[in-house]
Amino acid sequence: MSENEKPKVHTLSKDEGLTNGGNNVSSNKFDLATVYVSDAQYNRNSVFDTSPQTVRLYLLYNHWFMQTLVYVFIIVNLALALFEDPAVVPLPIWATSTTEIICLSAFTVRMIHYAKIIPKDKFWKDPKNICIIVVITLSFIDLTIYGALKSTGYFAIRWSRVLRPLLLVNVTEGRQLRRAFRSIRNALPQIAYVFLLFMFSVLVFSLVALKLFGKRGLLTIDGSPYFTDYVDIVFDLYVLVTTANSPDVMMPAYNYSDSFTIFFILYIVINIYTFMSFFLAVVYSNYKKHLKEEVRQLVKARRFKMCRAFSLLQEARGEGGEPVVTQAKWNHLVKLIKPNISIAHRELLWSVLDDQNKGHIGKFAFVQLADLLSIQVITVKSQPHPIHICFPSMYNSPVSRFIRYVVHHRMFVHVYDLIILVNAVFIGLDEENPVVSNAEWGFLVLYMLEIILKLYATEPRAFFARHHFWNWFDTIIIVSALFGTIINSALKHSGGYTGRQILDIVFILRVLRLIRLVDTIKRFRAIINTLIKIGPTILTFGQLIVVYYIFAMVGMELFKGKVQFFEPNSTSPDQEYCGNPLLKGTTFAKLNYCKNNFNNVVSSFIVLLELTVVNQWDGVDTGLVDAMESNDNELGPSEAAKQKPSLMFKIASRRSRTVDGLLQRMFETEIHPEDFEEEEPENINFSNPVFDSV
Amino acid sequence: MSENEKPKVHTLSKDEGLTNGGNNVSSNKFDLATVYVSDAQYNRNSVFDTSPQTVRLYLLYNHWFMQTLVYVFIIVNLALALFEDPAVVPLPIWATSTTEIICLSAFTVRMIHYAKIIPKDKFWKDPKNICIIVVITLSFIDLTIYGALKSTGYFAIRWSRVLRPLLLVNVTEGRQLRRAFRSIRNALPQIAYVFLLFMFSVLVFSLVALKLFGKRGLLTIDGSPYFTDYVDIVFDLYVLVTTANSPDVMMPAYNYSDSFTIFFILYIVINIYTFMSFFLAVVYSNYKKHLKEEVRQLVKARRFKMCRAFSLLQEARGEGGEPVVTQAKWNHLVKLIKPNISIAHRELLWSVLDDQNKGHIGKFAFVQLADLLSIQVITVKSQPHPIHICFPSMYNSPVSRFIRYVVHHRMFVHVYDLIILVNAVFIGLDEENPVVSNAEWGFLVLYMLEIILKLYATEPRAFFARHHFWNWFDTIIIVSALFGTIINSALKHSGGYTGRQILDIVFILRVLRLIRLVDTIKRFRAIINTLIKIGPTILTFGQLIVVYYIFAMVGMELFKGKVQFFEPNSTSPDQEYCGNPLLKGTTFAKLNYCKNNFNNVVSSFIVLLELTVVNQWDGVDTGLVDAMESNDNELGPSEAAKQKPSLMFKIASRRSRTVDGLLQRMFETEIHPEDFEEEEPENINFSNPVFDSV
Repeated sequence: MSENEKPKVHTLSKDEGLTNGGNNVSSNKFDLATVYVSDAQYNRNSVFDTSPQTVRLYLLYNHWFMQTLVYVFIIVNLALALFEDPAVVPLPIWATSTTEIICLSAFTVRMIHYAKIIPKDKFWKDPKNICIIVVITLSFIDLTIYGALKSTGYFAIRWSRVLRPLLLVNVTEGRQLRRAFRSIRNALPQIAYVFLLFMFSVLVFSLVALKLFGKRGLLTIDGSPYFTDYVDIVFDLYVLVTTANSPDVMMPAYNYSDSFTIFFILYIVINIYTFMSFFLAVVYSNYKKHLKEEVRQLVKARRFKMCRAFSLLQEARGEGGEPVVTQAKWNHLVKLIKPNISIAHRELLWSVLDDQNKGHIGKFAFVQLADLLSIQVITVKSQPHPIHICFPSMYNSPVSRFIRYVVHHRMFVHVYDLIILVNAVFIGLDEENPVVSNAEWGFLVLYMLEIILKLYATEPRAFFARHHFWNWFDTIIIVSALFGTIINSALKHSGGYTGRQILDIVFILRVLRLIRLVDTIKRFRAIINTLIKIGPTILTFGQLIVVYYIFAMVGMELFKGKVQFFEPNSTSPDQEYCGNPLLKGTTFAKLNYCKNNFNNVVSSFIVLLELTVVNQWDGVDTGLVDAMESNDNELGPSEAAKQKPSLMFKIASRRSRTVDGLLQRMFETEIHPEDFEEEEPENINFSNPVFDSV
Repeated sequence: MSENEKPKVHTLSKDEGLTNGGNNVSSNKFDLATVYVSDAQYNRNSVFDTSPQTVRLYLLYNHWFMQTLVYVFIIVNLALALFEDPAVVPLPIWATSTTEIICLSAFTVRMIHYAKIIPKDKFWKDPKNICIIVVITLSFIDLTIYGALKSTGYFAIRWSRVLRPLLLVNVTEGRQLRRAFRSIRNALPQIAYVFLLFMFSVLVFSLVALKLFGKRGLLTIDGSPYFTDYVDIVFDLYVLVTTANSPDVMMPAYNYSDSFTIFFILYIVINIYTFMSFFLAVVYSNYKKHLKEEVRQLVKARRFKMCRAFSLLQEARGEGGEPVVTQAKWNHLVKLIKPNISIAHRELLWSVLDDQNKGHIGKFAFVQLADLLSIQVITVKSQPHPIHICFPSMYNSPVSRFIRYVVHHRMFVHVYDLIILVNAVFIGLDEENPVVSNAEWGFLVLYMLEIILKLYATEPRAFFARHHFWNWFDTIIIVSALFGTIINSALKHSGGYTGRQILDIVFILRVLRLIRLVDTIKRFRAIINTLIKIGPTILTFGQLIVVYYIFAMVGMELFKGKVQFFEPNSTSPDQEYCGNPLLKGTTFAKLNYCKNNFNNVVSSFIVLLELTVVNQWDGVDTGLVDAMESNDNELGPSEAAKQKPSLMFKIASRRSRTVDGLLQRMFETEIHPEDFEEEEPENINFSNPVFDSV
């Protein structure tokens, strides 16, 4: 194949006007180049054939609709836990089983689609694919057995539900999640050693405790012997690390003698402060090291793919016969990659790359295309206000000018900040007081007036531009609150409705208004912007919630129905001990924890969350540190291409909104230029010999 | 003065054989050079005159004995809290007052000594000095008033005790502590903004909680209304961030409706996970930034001082007339700086600097002296074993050779690891069982045998070399345990002693033996070594315990005697409520927390520690991260100067044991060479014009 295609590249290079796609061969070249560029842009690492049919299939496979569909099926599949026994909303078995079969079939089709794209040997070498196939097979088997057993009245367990999260982790789209898992797995050996030493320390301290306190006949507060059993001591001291039983665990010894506190102080200093800091340090440094390596590989692979795309479109034209890509070909390529890109935006990108206005660009400039496409560019058109067009004399009258001057004045913002503060006080007051509930109408009118005035002073399309977060926020909150308040008072006057759901929503909307105060103070705005920017990274780790799913499934099979919750107005005598005689008189029952059970998937998640909160610190969060640091260097919104009248570009953010882009920026100062040599990256599986000469 | 000295430098330069100190002028030059080099070595930043008398005074001021004395007085002064009312060990007022007067006088003398060294204007410009003088004056005034009031029977408060920690912070020796405080202070503004936003978030959430739950008539577990008072809600939700009241705080809402958990989950995700991570990130990045800047200044100042020392001893000798320092002068200088340095060590240092064996070194090599002196070099002399000298034939007999072979074999270590493991089981068993108590004697004999065998196989001076931590550890533990066990069984047989103090110590010594297991596993040893290396940094922050002292003093004045502790066998009816009727029926009294009070300085410290443990994570610990990272690059012990027979040097650690050295290494890759230009550092106050030509 390599021998066939190589000459064609050169034939094609002489072709020029292919804005309409040209013949089949050149169309395929462009398709392939499009695939390379968008693979580079989204950091996809797929192996695929270069035949026209495969490229089409690959484009279809990576179409946003197909990807969204897969996620929908995964979510539906995971959400089935809500309806399966033990269910939050019980559905018959035939309904849940049919839904699951549809989902599993969709995953199977997706797998077959993927198998058609990449070479057979590569497909079977990838553990992700094996894992998905095994999960699908096991789920079908489990479903059949469960259905058969249930219909004949036997006891059955849906054990394959535990495997569902693996589908989320292993679909090609779950790259971020896999990276998170990989980083954790890579840090494990280091952590394991520190953990073993930590456990050794706990064991040694426990032995000392046994020898010091065991024979003294001390009693704990509930009258049981204190520190007489080695295993109990180990458990108590281990729990002390989470600070959950501090200071109760030391009180009997402290009451006996002051000097015994030395033991506990030493324990706390060594096992809480030193070891926990050490854990954090080990996790952080390992995580950072592996992440850096991953990003390095990512950048390398991206550059390699861009070089391939370049070699497909290149022609010898530059000074000294260096290969270049012409503007015509480049335009065609960009249109294929981003069909809805505006001409102005495309021309802006070209003018950035071809800064000397030669009409063609070299390899170095071409390679930057993937990064440029990731940058969010907002096209700001300075259009006249619609009222200005319809009633120019009125819009330019002195009164109208004065209104616009006032609205754009800083004091206008401060006055509304003051109104919000007064509103906050009124929200805090009892809303059943007629003065307070009438004042609410006043505030609503004031806020509506603000929005109307702003819309009068600013061109509406500019006001509701996509990057004006707070304008959207305000409008949605105020309009919703207005509707909510109207509906609520209508229902109240009709007297037929006594529920509080609508009132609750109205209250929350009212309080949410107060958040706008944050936007006025510059330093607060900077913090919020940082939080929004690192949002994608946090969400990636948020996907680790699938781990909870596995625990919830296991917990439900093991503990469902063991602890019962009775409604507060229930008169059942079992209410006192959560319906389980074993819990009679325990703190669990006394503190009314009965609802903390594994009786359905929602309760299970809440219990697991409560358990997590006690040990809240994990090193994973420290990825924040670098995101923060790199934010220090962030430039403000800059303006480009000012020479074009009535059209302005604004770079929404210097960094792309994707996690990959964020990661790349984090390490960009640390990745050395020699990493960008054009040799083939090791972990990428392209192996079409035709491109090896690049 | 500058005009007087400059020519003398050149006159002196022609002088050669000054190994005996030479005349007065050259002796003064050497004294001054010594001061510069040791200031550079210990990163002291003092301003001083260059007159011979001042240099002598300065050397005396920085003498280790004087510095130790100051620390002793500070510790005695702080320890007075143990003996003053409310006292752990009550002493009469005249005794504590006299001791305090002695301490304060010592500080005054030290201040006068310091004032004699540095120019008057510099002295009064330094806030440290002002602070110390103010503290001393206020303490004297307070002491006088307190004495007068007490002797006439009035009520009096020793308020100046709160100021005592300031002496520790502000003595010149407290540099590390001041740096820690400075880093914290520098990070405060950034943290303040995040904290304000965090508080805003808590306030908004509290308002939502008030509106959602306030009117629903929910009750907490103790029957009080749930979430009806705004201030209570703010407090409850603030405490939830420390996880102390989780999940109790959400149970009433959760029992009412599942959907209310969304509120708490959002609160936990935003305020615990996001904001707390953000705090850590801000503290970490700020701390690191400021520390880096401080270290940069330190390195700059050090180099500047070394250049001054060089200019004092230089003479034009090198190729092209470049100034150099001869070996004779260098030797004399090193002898003055480190009087007990061995000739071999000094020659080693010289051979490192003068690698081309020219007999003189240039400025670049000379400047490295301060760093070289900080490196711990262990001189290993391969001497024959004493038994080998006395009884050569016996020591070389086949049996003796076999014993030595066995002792040095890896299996010997493993056999003893096994013995330790068996011992661990025996320690866990009941020691009143005669088999167990007799087995203890067996173990002691086995351990003693191990030490004797090792001493037979290894030259005793090498075995007990300073860097062989585990040899020292083993010997001390075993010999102490042997003595303890003998004394204990002697007392037991005589029947006169029934206390458990000696037995307690023996038990602890027995358990401590088990720690040696750690040394066998390589990865564990690496972790322990890292912990030992970052020990000085941890200890620096350990000094922040002085903050506790201030809180303890204030707490004692406010709360002493408010909560009483009664011995467990007391029959007082007040015992139930800690002697304070206000505590009747509270959880505090029920859980027997009476001893958690402010009745003396020891109790106060323990209470404060307990309060700290609940919020255990502070960003300060993250200095660890870098210490860890730099440890990755650590080389193993390397050997140098092998050409010298029967004498070996071993670099104990590539980094010095001081905190400054550790800090410098942490940032050494990040500090750019241009920082080491020879211009005068900004924050250093040297201003003798004679050296400005350097």
